[in-house]
Formats: sequence, structure tokens, C-alpha cells
Amino acid sequence: MDRKRFEKQLAFILEADKEKNIYRQTHLSGNGRRENDAEHAWHMAMMIYLLKEYANDKFDVTKAMMMALIHDIVEIDAGDTYAYDTKGAETQKEREKCAADRIYGLLPDDQCNELRALFEEFEAGETAEARFVKTMDNLQPLLLNNSNNGADWREHNVSKSKVFARHRNSRLGSEDIWKYTEELINENVKKGNIKDE
Amino acid sequence: MDRKRFEKQLAFILEADKEKNIYRQTHLSGNGRRENDAEHAWHMAMMIYLLKEYANDKFDVTKAMMMALIHDIVEIDAGDTYAYDTKGAETQKEREKCAADRIYGLLPDDQCNELRALFEEFEAGETAEARFVKTMDNLQPLLLNNSNNGADWREHNVSKSKVFARHRNSRLGSEDIWKYTEELINENVKKGNIKDE
Repeated sequence: MDRKRFEKQLAFILEADKEKNIYRQTHLSGNGRRENDAEHAWHMAMMIYLLKEYANDKFDVTKAMMMALIHDIVEIDAGDTYAYDTKGAETQKEREKCAADRIYGLLPDDQCNELRALFEEFEAGETAEARFVKTMDNLQPLLLNNSNNGADWREHNVSKSKVFARHRNSRLGSEDIWKYTEELINENVKKGNIKDE
Repeated sequence: MDRKRFEKQLAFILEADKEKNIYRQTHLSGNGRRENDAEHAWHMAMMIYLLKEYANDKFDVTKAMMMALIHDIVEIDAGDTYAYDTKGAETQKEREKCAADRIYGLLPDDQCNELRALFEEFEAGETAEARFVKTMDNLQPLLLNNSNNGADWREHNVSKSKVFARHRNSRLGSEDIWKYTEELINENVKKGNIKDE
């Protein structure tokens, strides 16, 4: 064992622990507390494995699971930007780039490069893996929010067009899951949980 | 898409959300709050990917990651049994079997069988995947506890022999990580964080 290498890996692993303190706008099922990034990523990775049969294109499951597990690591420094926060979105890219430099930089060079590339691939959303991971990134909070009768949408008074704009890219990962998403959004519009225009 | 199949998968995924409310004895780094099962599993899955080079034997990374992600699902019904709770350990197996029947039973038959087998393989600890996942299951709380100057051991007044008994099987997954574990435990005995006999 190269002890220096191992210690760099452990430094990253310990730093990643802080993701458990980054809270999102989504609430846990049963109208629970707000969810944190680590819990969200755990749920997504499991969903990738269980729902992979619905992906539009074949993909590398290990790679997609790791992509999901680390896709929010930058929020340790950059914070969570709510999906419907247009002001925060303006500075999000720059804040997340600095965070990626620092946090992935704790790893040995080869793994730093690998995880940064994986994060950037997710952000770009062009490969089969990134597309399906983004579908899961949308579906996971949708399921929780729907189970809570749309409490998160109601709290933020979100409109139908914004919800559709946010979820539209789910179609690129899975046509099947996109159809289900459309149904669920429309049901919540009917119930008055999402503002109709 | 077979809609009934998909709804079974979603029922399991939503049920799994409850794992975020199962709290362990381990505290987050920075002397934070107690960690929950979902966070612990997220951390382990990431560690499997990053530390796989230290495994004694080659293993299937996707399988090991999924095994880690779901290894504590049964605790939704059975609760967390603290590693040094000998009374709880007596009934743990039976409680966890009933939980596995109910929770994995939400899935379509093929995935129910697959995940139950994965959970039982983890419990048996005999394959290369199960051995390495168990090493991570030990290392993850060890890193957090060590970063908090052994606060969890001190709180429970845990003795050296018990800590070694709990961690001994780490050796089966990785000789390298076992050597590091021994060092870390002995350091914490010296510091008085673990009771010397």
C-alpha cells in the first residue's frame, strides 16, 4: 500500500461526510424533515440499479451509480441551489467549479481527474449515463413530493410551466419514465398542488 | 412498460425512504449529530469504488455497491442494533428476516429474489463482494469516530477486545485496510479513547 495515496483517499472520504449537512428543499416522505444531499444521492444510486431496464440506451451501471453518488459533492462549498431559484443559478457554475477544484483536489491525481470528469459529464448531460442519472435526479424528489401531496410545490407556489421545464430532460434518459412524469405532474396540477396558468 | 411492475418498484423505492430516519450510534465528523442508515450506505458505496484497489480479491463493483446501498434496509422494521449490544444481537436475525420478507417483498419477484439474495450474501460474508463490503461497513464509522477523537467509544465505554472483535473480519476483505485499522485502534487505546484491559 502506498500510504500517502491512501491518506489522500481518506481525506476526500472524510471531507465528503460534510455532504450530510447540505439540506435540499425536498422533504422526506411522511411529511418529514428536509432531505440532505447524501440521502438524495443514496436513493438515486439505488434507483439507477432498480430502474435501469427503462433507460433509452444501454449504459455502464457502475459509472452511473458513482456519478450519482458524487454529483452533489461540490455543494459542500457551493451550497444547494433550489431548482426554481433563477438568481442563484446565475452564479452556480462558477461557485461549483471552485468547489470541484478544492474537493476533488484532495484525491490522488488519477482519481481527482476521474471524478472531476464524471462530474463534468453529469453536468453536460450528453452521454447515456449522464442522461439516465439526470432522469433519476428528477424522479427521486418527484416521488417524495408527490407522496407528500405536493407540499414542496405548494410551499414555493411553483407553476406548471416551471415544473415541466425542470423535468423536460427526463425524456432524454427514459421515454417511459418521462410519460409517467407527465402524468404525475398533470395530476398534481388538477389537485391544485402545482399552479396552473 | 409494464405499469404494474413499475409501480411495485416505486413502492419499494418509496418505502426505502424510511431508512433516512433510522439513526445509528455513530456521529458525523465535526462532532455532529448521529448518522442515519442511508447516509452510512451512501458513504460506503462511494468508498467501495474509491478503495477497491486494496481488496484482497477481485470483485464485481456494481454488485458490491448495490449490496452496500441496501444492506441496512431491514432496519426500517428491525431497528439498528448497536455493534456492542449483545442483548439486541440475540433477536437481531429473526427481526431482520421478517423485515426482509416484508420490504423486499414489495418488489417484483425477480428483483425481490435478487435483493434478498444480495442481502443474505452480505450477511454470510463469504464471497469477495460481501467480504469487501463488510470491510467498508467497519472502516466507515471508524473514520468518523476517529475524526471525533473516539467520542463514540468513550460514550459507550468500549473495551479494546470488543473493538478488535468487531473489526477482525475487515482482514478478510483487505489485509491493507486491516493493518491500518489495527494502527488506528491502537492509537485510540493509547489516547484513552478505548478502554485498555
